[in-house]
Amino acid sequence: MKLLSFIHQGRETWGAVVGDGVVDLGKARPHQATLADYIASGDYKQAAQHVAGLDTAAKLSDITYLPVITKPEKIICAVRNYMDHHQEVLAAGMQRDLSEEPPIFLRVWRSQTAHNAPIVRPRVSDSLDWEGELAVIIGAGGRDIPESKAFDHVAGYACYNDGSVREWQFHAKQIASGKNFESTGGFGPWMVTADEIEPGRQLKLETRLNGEVMQSSHTGHMIFSIQKLINYASTIFTLTPGDVIVTGTPAGVGWSRKPPRFMKPGDVCEVEIEAVGILANPIVQQS
Amino acid sequence: MKLLSFIHQGRETWGAVVGDGVVDLGKARPHQATLADYIASGDYKQAAQHVAGLDTAAKLSDITYLPVITKPEKIICAVRNYMDHHQEVLAAGMQRDLSEEPPIFLRVWRSQTAHNAPIVRPRVSDSLDWEGELAVIIGAGGRDIPESKAFDHVAGYACYNDGSVREWQFHAKQIASGKNFESTGGFGPWMVTADEIEPGRQLKLETRLNGEVMQSSHTGHMIFSIQKLINYASTIFTLTPGDVIVTGTPAGVGWSRKPPRFMKPGDVCEVEIEAVGILANPIVQQS
Repeated sequence: MKLLSFIHQGRETWGAVVGDGVVDLGKARPHQATLADYIASGDYKQAAQHVAGLDTAAKLSDITYLPVITKPEKIICAVRNYMDHHQEVLAAGMQRDLSEEPPIFLRVWRSQTAHNAPIVRPRVSDSLDWEGELAVIIGAGGRDIPESKAFDHVAGYACYNDGSVREWQFHAKQIASGKNFESTGGFGPWMVTADEIEPGRQLKLETRLNGEVMQSSHTGHMIFSIQKLINYASTIFTLTPGDVIVTGTPAGVGWSRKPPRFMKPGDVCEVEIEAVGILANPIVQQS
Repeated sequence: MKLLSFIHQGRETWGAVVGDGVVDLGKARPHQATLADYIASGDYKQAAQHVAGLDTAAKLSDITYLPVITKPEKIICAVRNYMDHHQEVLAAGMQRDLSEEPPIFLRVWRSQTAHNAPIVRPRVSDSLDWEGELAVIIGAGGRDIPESKAFDHVAGYACYNDGSVREWQFHAKQIASGKNFESTGGFGPWMVTADEIEPGRQLKLETRLNGEVMQSSHTGHMIFSIQKLINYASTIFTLTPGDVIVTGTPAGVGWSRKPPRFMKPGDVCEVEIEAVGILANPIVQQS
């Protein structure tokens, strides 16, 4: 099942994809104001039953998407988590050892943007780069979750474009600055519930800029597995329903190319993940 | 005026300190559910009028404190922002250049703990360190705030103990891991509204472990000023009322001592800032 957040008739709501349309579950289940509430209740596992008999409210082509989870409590992002990306970074002359534990940073929900909505290039820099990534949406929360139980806590998967303002990312050793500009993190178009993707399945991941393939890899190249990321993060934080773990990007980012390439106004960047979907974002300049 | 969040008769509320007691403004102003709401409305500037004629609901010694802002949308922390701390880090053998722009990282609200509430040493590490810091609470939100207008956006100041699990902080170059363990960031006991502290005033800051002075410095040693931090952060994020900017720690942290010293269960750590107050936290072991 594909679950999503969207705007329908001027109202923020959430629902499920059925055929080429969406069922407005936010209307049918007013006690659950957001998709995160639906996930927290555990009811999302019966989504197929909840849409049965309901009409679609609109065509997918007619809705305004919102970030899959509009305001995650936490967005926990892995750095340098694909071996092919690590190798290209070394080749670009950056001296970096692989760490023994997952390097993570945080994004804030304001840095997110929806499918079809713009990724905004800020006025202060033109080094806006793409990073296609698999996002894991947490279902059941918890702390100190062992790797062996990690997939029990996954509600689903989505595409993420961890848009990065490189110049600001490298102002200092801490990269949070360049990773948190408003409306730079594409998240959508929907989440595919975990029952549809076997735990640990190797998924093809491709990022395209104006149709040109920039990243082409698969999730089997991850250095730290989804289980390890959940275990590590939950040792620090209590994970809560709707938290997002963004699992890192493969080779092919713009700044390690020679010459570097970046996203500019007028471009369209797409992140496609096998069995999940295609996230597309036009690039616009901050006004 | 001193504003705070607390629990009274089993109910989360907020209010103001009057004498040795607290006025329950959350009860008197039910349309403002949290101190952050009160700040967002701008009404906090008339707090003295709002408490006039109201009885205190409890003595300060009888309340259970909450973190000053219980769930800030953003907690933006400066790294390496005191020249005396930078020098001790260099002396400890860490090779680090000063950056030209402020290095920042993010904490999540779950990592906070209130005045008198425990700072929790996690099971996975015994390298729990103190960092006494001045917290700036944002009043009016905004983006791209120039330095010249920055103080117009400050609602007040509080003490912060940016408790750090050093071993995890240094798992990788990104320090977010060691800075986000649950209940490690002391924040309290209250905020002093900005009208009581002249912009840029040099404030003495002292951190004590079991009464022994560990950090003794003043905010004049900051490398990046409060104005610069607000300008920098607001270039990235839209700041919103109740956001917290934690301005960095001076010399005297535990891990740069020889031998290193850390906080352990049974200790009490205090952060005292001139004209602001004293934040005290007992240390307990994660159960």
